[in-house]
Parts: sequence; C-alpha cells; structure tokens
Amino acid sequence: MTYAIGIDIGGTNTDMGLVREDGTIIARTNIPTNAYTEFQPYVKDIMDCIAKLMKGNNVSSIEGIGIGAPNGNFYTGCVDNAPNLTIKGVLNFEEEMRKYMDVKVVLSNDANAAAYGELVYGGAKGLDNFIMFTLGTGVGSGIVLDGKLVHGSTGAAGELGHAILVPEGRQCSCGRKGCLETYTSARGIVQTFCELRKQTPNYNGKLMSVPDKDITSKMIGDAANDGDLVAQVTYARTAYYLGIAMANAVTFSAPQAIFLLGGPTKVGKPLMEPLVESFKKHLLNIYEGSCEIRMSQLNANEVAILGAAALIKMK
Amino acid sequence: MTYAIGIDIGGTNTDMGLVREDGTIIARTNIPTNAYTEFQPYVKDIMDCIAKLMKGNNVSSIEGIGIGAPNGNFYTGCVDNAPNLTIKGVLNFEEEMRKYMDVKVVLSNDANAAAYGELVYGGAKGLDNFIMFTLGTGVGSGIVLDGKLVHGSTGAAGELGHAILVPEGRQCSCGRKGCLETYTSARGIVQTFCELRKQTPNYNGKLMSVPDKDITSKMIGDAANDGDLVAQVTYARTAYYLGIAMANAVTFSAPQAIFLLGGPTKVGKPLMEPLVESFKKHLLNIYEGSCEIRMSQLNANEVAILGAAALIKMK
Repeated sequence: MTYAIGIDIGGTNTDMGLVREDGTIIARTNIPTNAYTEFQPYVKDIMDCIAKLMKGNNVSSIEGIGIGAPNGNFYTGCVDNAPNLTIKGVLNFEEEMRKYMDVKVVLSNDANAAAYGELVYGGAKGLDNFIMFTLGTGVGSGIVLDGKLVHGSTGAAGELGHAILVPEGRQCSCGRKGCLETYTSARGIVQTFCELRKQTPNYNGKLMSVPDKDITSKMIGDAANDGDLVAQVTYARTAYYLGIAMANAVTFSAPQAIFLLGGPTKVGKPLMEPLVESFKKHLLNIYEGSCEIRMSQLNANEVAILGAAALIKMK
Repeated sequence: MTYAIGIDIGGTNTDMGLVREDGTIIARTNIPTNAYTEFQPYVKDIMDCIAKLMKGNNVSSIEGIGIGAPNGNFYTGCVDNAPNLTIKGVLNFEEEMRKYMDVKVVLSNDANAAAYGELVYGGAKGLDNFIMFTLGTGVGSGIVLDGKLVHGSTGAAGELGHAILVPEGRQCSCGRKGCLETYTSARGIVQTFCELRKQTPNYNGKLMSVPDKDITSKMIGDAANDGDLVAQVTYARTAYYLGIAMANAVTFSAPQAIFLLGGPTKVGKPLMEPLVESFKKHLLNIYEGSCEIRMSQLNANEVAILGAAALIKMK
C-alpha cells in the first residue's frame, strides 16, 4: 500500500489527511489558516502535522503531497495572491515544503482537485473526458481531457463559473456582469428566490417571514422539496441556466459526462429534473446522447482532501 | 523534402493540393462535389486526381492525405451524414482511399483543420495553447491544447459557434436560439445591419437603397470603412459579442492566443478596435495580459488545403 497527503487550504481552516491508495482517509487533522499572517511558520506547522499523521499511523513514506487551494497554480506550485487568505503574496509551497521533506508537491485550485479526485477515487474512474462543476459560495469547474486535467497556458484554465452566461446580466463579485456564478452559486440561488418572492405578492410559503439576508440555498431546497412553488421555480430557473452552461461546455470538449458537486446540488428532484431538461434542450444535436449528467460519488466532507491527494497521481 | 495531400471537401467543390513540407502548395486541382451521389466513384476520381498531381510533379511518395470536411470525424475517419453534401450516409474515406494507396489518411472538420494549419504552417507555430475562430456563413472553431487538436470523446469537440451566447436570443439554423453564430457569422452581421438600419429612420448611407436580401457582410465592412455610422455600429456590436465569446473561451483553456480567420475578419479597424476593447472588458482579471487576439497568417485561398494537409502531422 502507498500513501499520500491531501491538503485543502481554505480561508478559515487548513485540512490535512493521510490517504491510502484505495481512497480511504486513514487520519486527518487541521490548523486554522487565518491564525497565520506569515508563510514560513504556517508551512512549518503543516509539516509538523504531516509528520505526526505519518508517525501515528506507522507510515514511513508517502508518494507525495497534493494541495488544493484558492488560486493554486499547477505550473508554479504557488498560491498567487489569494484574496481570501490572511497570508499575502505569492506562496511557493513546493519550495518551502521541500525544506522539510524530499517529496513530490503538486498544487492546483480546489475545483480542479475535486475533478481529479473524482477521476482517481470517485465516479469518473476510467473516464477520459469529463467536466466537474462545483456549486457553493461560488461556482468552480475542473476539466479532464484525454485523462489529464486541463491547466492551459497559465495554469488557470477551467474557470467556467466566470464564463459570461447573460451579457449585461447580474453583477458578479469578479467585477464583471452575467457570470454563470451569479445565477447558480448558493448566493445566486438566494438572489433568484428573493427576486421571485418579491414578484409574488400573495406568496405565503414557509419562508414568508424569513428576511432576505437570512435565507440560504439549503432552506430554499428544503422548501422546494416541501412543495413551495416559489422555491421550486427558483431551482428550475437555476437549472435552466446551469443546463445552458453545461451544453456550452460540451461544444468545447465533447465530454462523456458532467459531474456535479456541492451543497446546492443535494436538493435532488427540484434541481435535477429541470436540469436534465434544460441540458437536453440546449445541447447541440450532434452531441445528443453522448454526455450524461452525474452526481459526484465522493463524500462531501472528504472530497477536498481526496481531490488534493489525487493530484499527485498526475502525469 | 516530404509531401502531403490536402483535401478540402465543400458542398460545391472538392479542392485538392500537393503540399511541400514548408507549406508551399506545389499544385492544385478540383472536382465538383455536387456532381456525385455515390461515394465509390467520388473517391475514385479523387484518387485519380492525386495520382496526377503526384506524377505531374515528380513526387513518388506522400506522407499522407489530410481531409477537411463538414462533419469530418477524426476518430472514425468518416464524414457522418453531412447535411450539405449530395453524397449521403456515413462516408469512410480512410477505408475507401486505402483501396488505392497504402497511405495515412486523417480527417477532421474544416475549422479544426484551419487551426492545425495555423499551427503547422502559419502564425501559431510554436504555440501549445490557442483557439481559432473562423467567421464565414457559419462560425467554426478549432482548439489546440498542449500542442494537440481537441477532439473530445466523440471527435466533435470545438463547436464554439454553437455555444449559446444570448439565452433565448436569435434563432439559429441548428434549431436552438442565441448561438454565437447568429450574431457573428456573415449572416448574423447582415441581420444586425438590417435591424439597425430599420431602427434608424434618417439613415442615408450608401447602402440605403440596397434591399435587405442583397446586403452582404463585405458591403457592410466597406461601408464601415467609408464612414457609414450604421455599418460601424454593426461591426462594433458584432465585436461586442465576439469579445464575450472569446473571453468565455479563455475561462475554459487559458490559451496564449485566439486567432481569427474568414471574410468578416478582413474588415479591419471597424471590427478589430471594438473587438479588442470587448475582449479586455469581458476577460476575467486572472487572465489579464495572458492571451492576445491575432489574425490568421495563412492565405485565405490556401488555408483549407494547408489545414487539411497539416492534419497528417498530428500525433
């Protein structure tokens, strides 16, 4: 058996896991990312954790360290000025970690890591061409083509959440307008619900008295499954946009499957039924029947670590 | 010196050229595609032409035959039910041609061939990651990633002309609505001009008395360069949409360059100035400065044959 370390760097926490090659997380630990403002002590503490994870489980050597991080760049091994990290600047993880251990270090952004995790440990095993959409606070994506993660010329390929879906559409946090993310992220779903509710003066569903600022996509999903019509229309509209984005992605790389991951995708029928319909309706006829929508097969609280660990399998 | 044959199959004509490895077309000939309804005699006549081209130029062997064709499928070596060909069905060129000559046969669609021609013989030499948009009656595209043409799982990847740019937008000939092609093809440009002219009651430009059905994108381009304001707004609007489509393509594969080919791109300033502006405005900030817009360096009447011939260089 071989082992790898997967690290998921988030703005709040840094999660680390010791992963066996069959995709089992043997042990995990974490440190608070936002407790650090300097890079060296942060990496030192990570390496201490890794040493403890290995020693505590009688693992004497690892295949490598995979890192999923916001703005993580595969080519440089660096995190480039991630806006949501308290440690600023260009962070060269590969270089810094090798001061402690002679080990392969591979870094990419979290959505790419999730896609690669699906390929190595999840439902995409054996697939050469697929795309992963991750729906959360934002919308991320990872693209696998001919068995390889697409990094492009800069290392920053696969940002389909920021493809413009509606010219001059909703304001996006990236500064532009109409990005897919503004319609299909958790935040976008809440916005759609609040807009629709406002347009429905006789709305008297369960969420009637919850103020806009307290609504979550999970609450809307639950309401939709309980028969709330406005919540159902919200998810149908979300699905309409996501179906177009998926059909557009197919015109690029003709994948065998598109995988979905993330909280808002857990709602089930209120999202999936209209999504399949929108995808079919908007798919160019030459691709008919060649690409299916699938749910990620990875456990929600394991995908980030497994995806990161999977990165070291990259050729 | 080695040689290749490039074949460009159109609905009307089949153009063939003998191409030297430096990208010079030594000799060319053609037969009328639409004079054939049967596949065997069509291929026989093509192979006769090839034999004559070789003999007439003292070329005893060729590296291969590359074919650019509508619905041409790289994986199968077949043209699959191309709607604009008089010869119907699934046409297996590779199999049929090998009855005459023991030679490598590679087939792809015309936009893919153009992109690969740019890589082998044109302005994309040495580039690993780029995208080609071809503007003509329709809008085609070819995507090169890590030095390879992207074919996807079915062989039909790279149809960015049919990515939906405006949900519920203009009716497309593919049966769906809002495809890029409906805004930026020659036909789309004419439609934009006619719509704008109608909305401008005091329009008194040169094209004032030309009926809608006789307007061409070339006439609009000439008028724009002559100072016709409605024609200039037409190209500015075309550029606006194309710039968004290009920025969206960058979120997929982070190319180093996007190339433009085809009649409507020849208009110059009225297209290019607003195109660069729209592209910059709609490009996600992480890609800033990483991708430039370039014109194809291949001669308009040679690109189809050169692109087809280039296909045999594919690994």
